[in-house]
Amino acid sequence: MEGREEQSPGSGAPDSLTDIYGEDGAIRASFLAHIGAAIADRDTLALKHDVAGLHQSELGDLLEALLPEQRRALVELMGSDFDFSSLTEVDEAIRLDIVDNLPNDQIAQAVQELDSDDAVYILEDLDEEDQEDILAQLPFTERIRLRRALDYPEETAGRRMQTEFVAVPPFWTVGQTIDYMREDHNLPDRFSQIFVIDPSFKLLGAVDLDQILRTKRSVKIEEIMHETRHAIPATMDQEEAAREFEQYDLLSAAVVDEDERLVGVLTIDDVVDVIQQEAEEDLLRMGGVGDEELSDTVVDTSRSRVPWLLINLMTAFLSASVISMFGATIEQMVALAALMPIVASLGGNAGTQTMTVTVRALATKDLDIYNAGRVIRREVMVGLLNGAVIATILGLVAGAWFQNPHLGLVIASAMIINMLAAALAGILIPLVLDRYGADPAISSSIFTTMITDVTGFMVFLGLAAWWLRLG
Amino acid sequence: MEGREEQSPGSGAPDSLTDIYGEDGAIRASFLAHIGAAIADRDTLALKHDVAGLHQSELGDLLEALLPEQRRALVELMGSDFDFSSLTEVDEAIRLDIVDNLPNDQIAQAVQELDSDDAVYILEDLDEEDQEDILAQLPFTERIRLRRALDYPEETAGRRMQTEFVAVPPFWTVGQTIDYMREDHNLPDRFSQIFVIDPSFKLLGAVDLDQILRTKRSVKIEEIMHETRHAIPATMDQEEAAREFEQYDLLSAAVVDEDERLVGVLTIDDVVDVIQQEAEEDLLRMGGVGDEELSDTVVDTSRSRVPWLLINLMTAFLSASVISMFGATIEQMVALAALMPIVASLGGNAGTQTMTVTVRALATKDLDIYNAGRVIRREVMVGLLNGAVIATILGLVAGAWFQNPHLGLVIASAMIINMLAAALAGILIPLVLDRYGADPAISSSIFTTMITDVTGFMVFLGLAAWWLRLG
Repeated sequence: MEGREEQSPGSGAPDSLTDIYGEDGAIRASFLAHIGAAIADRDTLALKHDVAGLHQSELGDLLEALLPEQRRALVELMGSDFDFSSLTEVDEAIRLDIVDNLPNDQIAQAVQELDSDDAVYILEDLDEEDQEDILAQLPFTERIRLRRALDYPEETAGRRMQTEFVAVPPFWTVGQTIDYMREDHNLPDRFSQIFVIDPSFKLLGAVDLDQILRTKRSVKIEEIMHETRHAIPATMDQEEAAREFEQYDLLSAAVVDEDERLVGVLTIDDVVDVIQQEAEEDLLRMGGVGDEELSDTVVDTSRSRVPWLLINLMTAFLSASVISMFGATIEQMVALAALMPIVASLGGNAGTQTMTVTVRALATKDLDIYNAGRVIRREVMVGLLNGAVIATILGLVAGAWFQNPHLGLVIASAMIINMLAAALAGILIPLVLDRYGADPAISSSIFTTMITDVTGFMVFLGLAAWWLRLG
Repeated sequence: MEGREEQSPGSGAPDSLTDIYGEDGAIRASFLAHIGAAIADRDTLALKHDVAGLHQSELGDLLEALLPEQRRALVELMGSDFDFSSLTEVDEAIRLDIVDNLPNDQIAQAVQELDSDDAVYILEDLDEEDQEDILAQLPFTERIRLRRALDYPEETAGRRMQTEFVAVPPFWTVGQTIDYMREDHNLPDRFSQIFVIDPSFKLLGAVDLDQILRTKRSVKIEEIMHETRHAIPATMDQEEAAREFEQYDLLSAAVVDEDERLVGVLTIDDVVDVIQQEAEEDLLRMGGVGDEELSDTVVDTSRSRVPWLLINLMTAFLSASVISMFGATIEQMVALAALMPIVASLGGNAGTQTMTVTVRALATKDLDIYNAGRVIRREVMVGLLNGAVIATILGLVAGAWFQNPHLGLVIASAMIINMLAAALAGILIPLVLDRYGADPAISSSIFTTMITDVTGFMVFLGLAAWWLRLG
């Protein structure tokens, strides 16, 4: 998913193109209407004029803004001038809709013009039959390269890598290397380092381009190459690979197979997408949503969200059964029914605060065995402190509202205990889930609120029952 | 915040260094103990041997794992061999603790060895007096450069930029440019493009290094440079700059002042940090936590979390007052008290699901005026569908539990209505907040759960009261 600005000075695209986006970051309505009219008129010339100069991501945004039938018509009208790399920038559902409407031989034609990582990105979503049919229509080397990447499991470095790279032997000089690059017209579109390999393609090292440019022609590559401490195994999970990039500020990294042979290169722009995706996944999981996209259908969306609601229904019944144990107490004093959700709700929110911080710290590896003890102590102290603040206000207001200072004391005590439970649940649940290999982002919030709900109702109603018996 | 692998082949650091991390991604206990012992013995030699080869981010992780007094001792013992760039990799509280313990002249000395963006990162947190004192001790050009970056507001491109860059005039040839880079020893540590400027430093264009390497020596720079459509104004918000990088897959971008003069370069590694930060901010805000770090004190943490809990307390009182309106109804049938939190809780969770998707889609600009209508319709449909599923189960179980099919019907109806309210609140609240310039991540969840709580209690108890009056 790389893009180079193709413009050379003077040839500049029309001015309107530089701001196809409005103030709000969305595509301008006027531009959209203009494109819509060209599509309606089947005015291929106007369309090519306006669309051909767009960056792949701009074209992607345009496709997402168009209606489905406009989208398909645009791809059809643009023909071989349609920039397929834009499909890597749109939602999966839109990509599939467009690709499924195209004959396989047109896809095969288009795929050859793409960088291998973009081609894989488009091919991997197709069903196996279409994939095979398209691969069969490609030239041999192209086919081998794409199949190799597709053979690696989903979400690995091997799937995301680009199989085009520049590699030279260690005994070449800087001069030879530069001459080679000036001659060879089969270079990748963009690259920021070259790799050094032995005759069996085993990776020896890498040289950044700026290093080549600041070195005299006579110097041997092996003298300026650095060992690639950060070569990425092709089977490494993309998330782990992204962490390597972040930690060591890499722009690109060699991807090697099990025999340490160079098979591809992973670049920072793909990694940025992975980082975005991972952060997004955590956010969505904590909100109780799976891997959803805005373009998903109603049924798909519903199916992905219902399981979480069903689990929530079970925990809600648990809370209900706790409350129903205290039926007699509530009958004796119906104000308890009005007040009990306050204790549960504030506990839930305090627990969620702690849990959010914990889940994030685990994801960024900021929380580990060295500081877990200290962080747990801190959370407990914060829970007690915030519990004291909230309990004081809650006790005063509730006591005044029902003109019953004892009731205020009961609810304040219950609140402090629940805040403590919230702090412990919010930190221990994600820690334990993480320890046993579960993803803390997915299930921490169910368990945390289950504990704060049950504790809240039980402690408040229990204390109230005990006090009513006393009175 | 850039780092180059300094190792050349053969000079390799000891093997143990390549895996200072254990399986769990945390620093190995054995390595930590080893460093701790060297610090305790004040064994500078052993310390330098083990620490000098670490990458800045590894040293940062080590600093975070050490106890505060060990940390300060390590910096002191390493003296001028301490890699200050590691301070850009640690929590703000730890950075301040270390820097505040050092004399200003030592900081001034260290800052001169850093890239300007790293220097600014360390200086910006200091109080003005120390900042001035340190700047005063720097050589003139260095001082001017840092002050210029520090003069730009926080969280802008100007603050994050590096003021070291390579710039050449347009009439130079590729050969001249390469020769210049071979001679000049004042080049930035790492760069991936060179800029083209006129005599007044006005930015004309840029050339990627791979482009220089594949072009003949005699070709003029102006023939291969591309116009920099993506020059970043120094005052642009860093978040907006990060979006430019993401959209156009940039590795680096020119930063220009109000007169379009080149003042610095923003690089992808800094942008990756910004992207991480922004995603993290959204996650934390939705969890009701501000800009907190694990190393914050109990009081700071408590202070940052209490406001959210206070707002939550107010909305909880709102729900309580709704319930108390139905005191007579609950007295008549105490089972209602046990069941009512189920309706509220499931509504809250369904609303949170919709809200999470909406907030994320707004943050990534995937949701805009073109698809808002469609997405609202989808959410309403999903709400009705999931409402039907949950209401059926809930109605059957509640009816059976209290052996009262009418009660089952009442709670099922209330559940469907609340799921509809949840869907509408979950999408409309973030959309409206965003529309009026508020950050939807911060307050959407308060308002959404307020609406689902109030609706849940009101509709369930209201329907129940009406049905009890009928019966």
